[in-house]
Amino acid sequence: MVTSGTSEEMKPGSVTLHPLGTAAAPEPELLCIFGTGDLGRSLGLRLLQSGYRVVYGSRRPHSCGLLPQGAQVMSHAAAAQSASLIFICVHREHYEFLETMASHLEGRVLVDLSNNLKKDMYPEANAIYLQRLVPGAAVVKGLNTLSAWALQNGLLAGKQVYLCGNSAEAKQAVAEMATKLGLTVLDRGSLSAARELEDFPLQLFREWRLPVRVAAGLTAFFFFYLLIRDVIYALVEQGDDISYRIMMSLGNKVFPIVSLIMLSLCYLPGVIAAFLQLYRGTKYKRFPPWLDRWMLCRKQMGLIALGLAFLHVIYTFIIPIRYAVRHKVISRVVNEMKNNKTTPFYFDDTEAWGTDSFFVLGILGFFLYVLLGLTSLPSVGGSLSWREFNFIQSKLGHLTLSICTAHGYIYGWNKFLRPSTYKWYTPPGYMLCLIVPSVVLVLKLLLLLPCVDRTLTRIRQGWERSQPRGDMGESNATNL
Amino acid sequence: MVTSGTSEEMKPGSVTLHPLGTAAAPEPELLCIFGTGDLGRSLGLRLLQSGYRVVYGSRRPHSCGLLPQGAQVMSHAAAAQSASLIFICVHREHYEFLETMASHLEGRVLVDLSNNLKKDMYPEANAIYLQRLVPGAAVVKGLNTLSAWALQNGLLAGKQVYLCGNSAEAKQAVAEMATKLGLTVLDRGSLSAARELEDFPLQLFREWRLPVRVAAGLTAFFFFYLLIRDVIYALVEQGDDISYRIMMSLGNKVFPIVSLIMLSLCYLPGVIAAFLQLYRGTKYKRFPPWLDRWMLCRKQMGLIALGLAFLHVIYTFIIPIRYAVRHKVISRVVNEMKNNKTTPFYFDDTEAWGTDSFFVLGILGFFLYVLLGLTSLPSVGGSLSWREFNFIQSKLGHLTLSICTAHGYIYGWNKFLRPSTYKWYTPPGYMLCLIVPSVVLVLKLLLLLPCVDRTLTRIRQGWERSQPRGDMGESNATNL
Amino acid sequence: MVTSGTSEEMKPGSVTLHPLGTAAAPEPELLCIFGTGDLGRSLGLRLLQSGYRVVYGSRRPHSCGLLPQGAQVMSHAAAAQSASLIFICVHREHYEFLETMASHLEGRVLVDLSNNLKKDMYPEANAIYLQRLVPGAAVVKGLNTLSAWALQNGLLAGKQVYLCGNSAEAKQAVAEMATKLGLTVLDRGSLSAARELEDFPLQLFREWRLPVRVAAGLTAFFFFYLLIRDVIYALVEQGDDISYRIMMSLGNKVFPIVSLIMLSLCYLPGVIAAFLQLYRGTKYKRFPPWLDRWMLCRKQMGLIALGLAFLHVIYTFIIPIRYAVRHKVISRVVNEMKNNKTTPFYFDDTEAWGTDSFFVLGILGFFLYVLLGLTSLPSVGGSLSWREFNFIQSKLGHLTLSICTAHGYIYGWNKFLRPSTYKWYTPPGYMLCLIVPSVVLVLKLLLLLPCVDRTLTRIRQGWERSQPRGDMGESNATNL
Repeated sequence: MVTSGTSEEMKPGSVTLHPLGTAAAPEPELLCIFGTGDLGRSLGLRLLQSGYRVVYGSRRPHSCGLLPQGAQVMSHAAAAQSASLIFICVHREHYEFLETMASHLEGRVLVDLSNNLKKDMYPEANAIYLQRLVPGAAVVKGLNTLSAWALQNGLLAGKQVYLCGNSAEAKQAVAEMATKLGLTVLDRGSLSAARELEDFPLQLFREWRLPVRVAAGLTAFFFFYLLIRDVIYALVEQGDDISYRIMMSLGNKVFPIVSLIMLSLCYLPGVIAAFLQLYRGTKYKRFPPWLDRWMLCRKQMGLIALGLAFLHVIYTFIIPIRYAVRHKVISRVVNEMKNNKTTPFYFDDTEAWGTDSFFVLGILGFFLYVLLGLTSLPSVGGSLSWREFNFIQSKLGHLTLSICTAHGYIYGWNKFLRPSTYKWYTPPGYMLCLIVPSVVLVLKLLLLLPCVDRTLTRIRQGWERSQPRGDMGESNATNL
Repeated sequence: MVTSGTSEEMKPGSVTLHPLGTAAAPEPELLCIFGTGDLGRSLGLRLLQSGYRVVYGSRRPHSCGLLPQGAQVMSHAAAAQSASLIFICVHREHYEFLETMASHLEGRVLVDLSNNLKKDMYPEANAIYLQRLVPGAAVVKGLNTLSAWALQNGLLAGKQVYLCGNSAEAKQAVAEMATKLGLTVLDRGSLSAARELEDFPLQLFREWRLPVRVAAGLTAFFFFYLLIRDVIYALVEQGDDISYRIMMSLGNKVFPIVSLIMLSLCYLPGVIAAFLQLYRGTKYKRFPPWLDRWMLCRKQMGLIALGLAFLHVIYTFIIPIRYAVRHKVISRVVNEMKNNKTTPFYFDDTEAWGTDSFFVLGILGFFLYVLLGLTSLPSVGGSLSWREFNFIQSKLGHLTLSICTAHGYIYGWNKFLRPSTYKWYTPPGYMLCLIVPSVVLVLKLLLLLPCVDRTLTRIRQGWERSQPRGDMGESNATNL
Repeated sequence: MVTSGTSEEMKPGSVTLHPLGTAAAPEPELLCIFGTGDLGRSLGLRLLQSGYRVVYGSRRPHSCGLLPQGAQVMSHAAAAQSASLIFICVHREHYEFLETMASHLEGRVLVDLSNNLKKDMYPEANAIYLQRLVPGAAVVKGLNTLSAWALQNGLLAGKQVYLCGNSAEAKQAVAEMATKLGLTVLDRGSLSAARELEDFPLQLFREWRLPVRVAAGLTAFFFFYLLIRDVIYALVEQGDDISYRIMMSLGNKVFPIVSLIMLSLCYLPGVIAAFLQLYRGTKYKRFPPWLDRWMLCRKQMGLIALGLAFLHVIYTFIIPIRYAVRHKVISRVVNEMKNNKTTPFYFDDTEAWGTDSFFVLGILGFFLYVLLGLTSLPSVGGSLSWREFNFIQSKLGHLTLSICTAHGYIYGWNKFLRPSTYKWYTPPGYMLCLIVPSVVLVLKLLLLLPCVDRTLTRIRQGWERSQPRGDMGESNATNL
């Protein structure tokens, strides 16, 4: 008796229609929402917009604030009677009332959208608790990653949501509804996965964690390394207090160093994977888990590297208006005047070429960096063909790495052999940061050697070294 | 007799198929378009791509330019006969001819997509005029916000369109078609809403208006305030013509000042709303309309603030290559040499720390600013979970505000007590601009006090101070 | 007998459901994939997520690596039996085995997703070869532009894919499936278009080619022009080796010059089109092909112009920390001290105003440039109404061009009449680069004259000069 609900928004117009092409429009399906909070309201709005009819279940049907236009409000029992699918937009703490009306929920699909504020707040998942309270209904856990904000603003197209539940039919009904909302549905199995789904929205930037930790570790290491080498060395050996350099000069050394290392760490796993495939002679063996995990966070590593490069660039631009720099320049002129009044001021052509090349490589590197970052925007990346995406992320990426590495090498081009560079027998920071990128570039060059490249291409097209040749037709990939 | 139209593009292939899984593919639905202009052509193309058949109605079926491949062209009458849904892609000025063929349009759904060039050009809405001309048809106003450009480029996915009309069946038919095109449909009720819908595309950046006005007002105020304090003061009191400073120095004061105020105005309404909820003891009362309106344009305010911060940053970078600045530095050296030849040039350590901290805070603030701006891109924001979005916009937002405010405080750290700062008894601009951010931050800190925070969290989860406790289950929101 | 396949993931739950609103959920359709490579796996995953059941056909059903959860694996023959639609995710080189099992493929729809590594690798298109091997099946070529990466990450919403095939029913079945995946399908006709579709993914940045070539040509021309004028002239005439300027100074002249020309080339075709329409008195005649092609790559031209402007801006910011610049400033001070000790250092007010205006125009121009670039991001542009998009791209675009042109004019404001500017009788680069933008702006101003503008608006609304006036109702466009 679902369709017996009043249909106030569907008054037939003054015109009698004889629809020719369209089948006589059926009454749209009625869905029920328990709970009139932000989420309930936003969900109802979106459902109405997608062509459903919506009825709210409320204990105070006459005083529950602003509900979306076109929705009805009833008592919980009446609302549950009229619809087969009920969204539970209520906090877990208030689930008890559902037990009292279990008879009205018999045979209904209950969609549990609830989230908790912390992990492991309750001994059992909310959805399992709900199923225990209302054993006669089919509980489906899901859609709990949607925000009221995204629902209101219609930002659902293509978003992935997860479902789990014990009843395949119930899941199918919910999945159909979600697909109509423009969502992409992923079935995660039985209701025992509910805890996992409830933990999902609590995970903050999960795929960012490893890259952020690596970046933070590297930053801390290089900060203290350079603090000792630059500031403390000057204090101890020369009695000079140059601690003011901590704010800017040190930052402008640490950021580019960590940025370059992070960028090379983006491309290292790809190179390792290629050598592993060459060594194994097949692409059908799984990579070790650490490599898999590493490869999955390459995009995040690259974006952190871009952020640090951005900071390095701004730090560099700000150099000439710093007090310390202006002071240094002015002092130099004054000294120049006092000591060296007769000889003309000497222009070092090599120095001019060196520093300018250094800057140009830095600028080009940053430009390509930004380009790589732009194509990692979902809407830009999505509009590229796979070959274009591949071209940018691989070819352009390695070019960026080469240019930035060259930028680093030029920085120290005339300091490698100067003993004063190695204070307290430690190499300067920029030398340390060139190790990983240089290794990646050398390995990549090895992979580009024609003979190696040919074997690798064959392996990636499905060829296996140890395997009878006639048997490989079906296991080949077409792309990539 | 709809499906009797010729189906030239559907020639059965040479292969006889016995489709097992798919139901025998039915003839796709035929839609009619009156008008072969840009919009008509683009709409037809998109409909064909979505699997419809399309017939154009034209007075000159044999000379109407390039139509999309696969579409047919007929006389108006013949085209109207063959389809139940007709798109009117004709200017309102030419609607009269529809009256003459009203008999052919009996029982058809007419979708009025027309727009006017100005508001209130005609006494009645185009759609109502159309309904008056053809009373036997069911007019649906809608889709008029779509551009030919968006239709051609397939940029429809997830876009919201509005419909209104007197016949629910007709609206249902149009909504179904629009959903197939990937659009999200919003029903705005009866045809009396047509005027509102027709005014919609005429609104240029509606949600930007208030923020732009506020920003323009603040910019004008601070420009004249600083013009008087800096340039005119120098002219009157010291007889110095420093009007050249209007171009750069003044801009580089006005932009950061307005940017910081705009940023704090982003976060002020949230704080006010929290205090209002605390005072009322419930979240179920509506906010006053001015607060609602303010909260709806926070994103735009933030983006304008970012734009101004961007200008401030570029202005700052350009400083050292300005003629006036170079001149000042050189003059200073020359003076230094003349007057003070014997004492060594003094390095002020506090000054170095102060300016460097100032710059570092500015850089970090700008970095976070850009991050906030990036997450407000639809495609980036849409890929975040609600908790991540919340984290960035609230936590990171307030951090950005704190850092930028600190940046402002450091700017004047040693000038607060200097009488020369208060020219003509007015405080300098940066002091004025620190008022609002400081208030916002203090109020926010009050809200973070454990006791206040606890009450607020309970209120936001649905608890009400004045209400019997047992009665609150159903009115609670799950999220946010 | 499609639905007889085992349905392991569809175990009915412990709850018996009486779905009221939903029709009894039917068994989802079963699709078959031949090939278990990257593409096959990703496609299967996406199909499962969209609610299909998936069976893989494999020669080694028991050792084919990781397949998506919920999919079955069978022998090729068994898999082909159970489904009516089969995706061929196998390299063309291994198609032969399909001939041997042609009897099992009788009446099936075969979707050929294959791509080749190069153009014209084989005498006939892969899909035509496949049709020849299995004449009893209906081959549909398509979806071959999808990458495994996009499939895995769900980046399909709104993406356009192409189909071709001889059987309309087969194409209809594939189009329905693709629509369910969120794709937008474009039918390209019979299987003879297969070659074209297979060449599609091989085209790298097709719409970028012309703009990149134009930009590269202009860059090369201006580089050598300025090399001769600046560096070689100084060497020959003055014996000065200033070759170090090639790295930075020359780049910082070439980039802004080419950027400004590219920007004006964005707006030139629109102006030409308008004059053509005025001359012809109608908008219903096609533009010449070169103009069409030019208009289609305006966005790419604009983005390249933005990239070059970005480089120009960074080059400019880096100026004051260059060795050569610092050297010049210091030398100047030293000279100042030596030669001119008595007269006070003169401050040129005009120079201060001039350079500051120059910088401010540059900054504003770059700011608007960035704004234009941002709105060309698919997700930003898609969220604007057509009137807003039009406003930004046309009004703001021409404003940007005007400001950047003024920036160029001010650069040379006091050098036009100086003979030393014309080394070897050649005009400096910035004069050459001002020609095109000036022409565009003058023509645009002509179009804005009230009388011209009125005629043009009428033409764009469908009016034709040579045509009987009463006959124009139906040929008018509503928008734009």
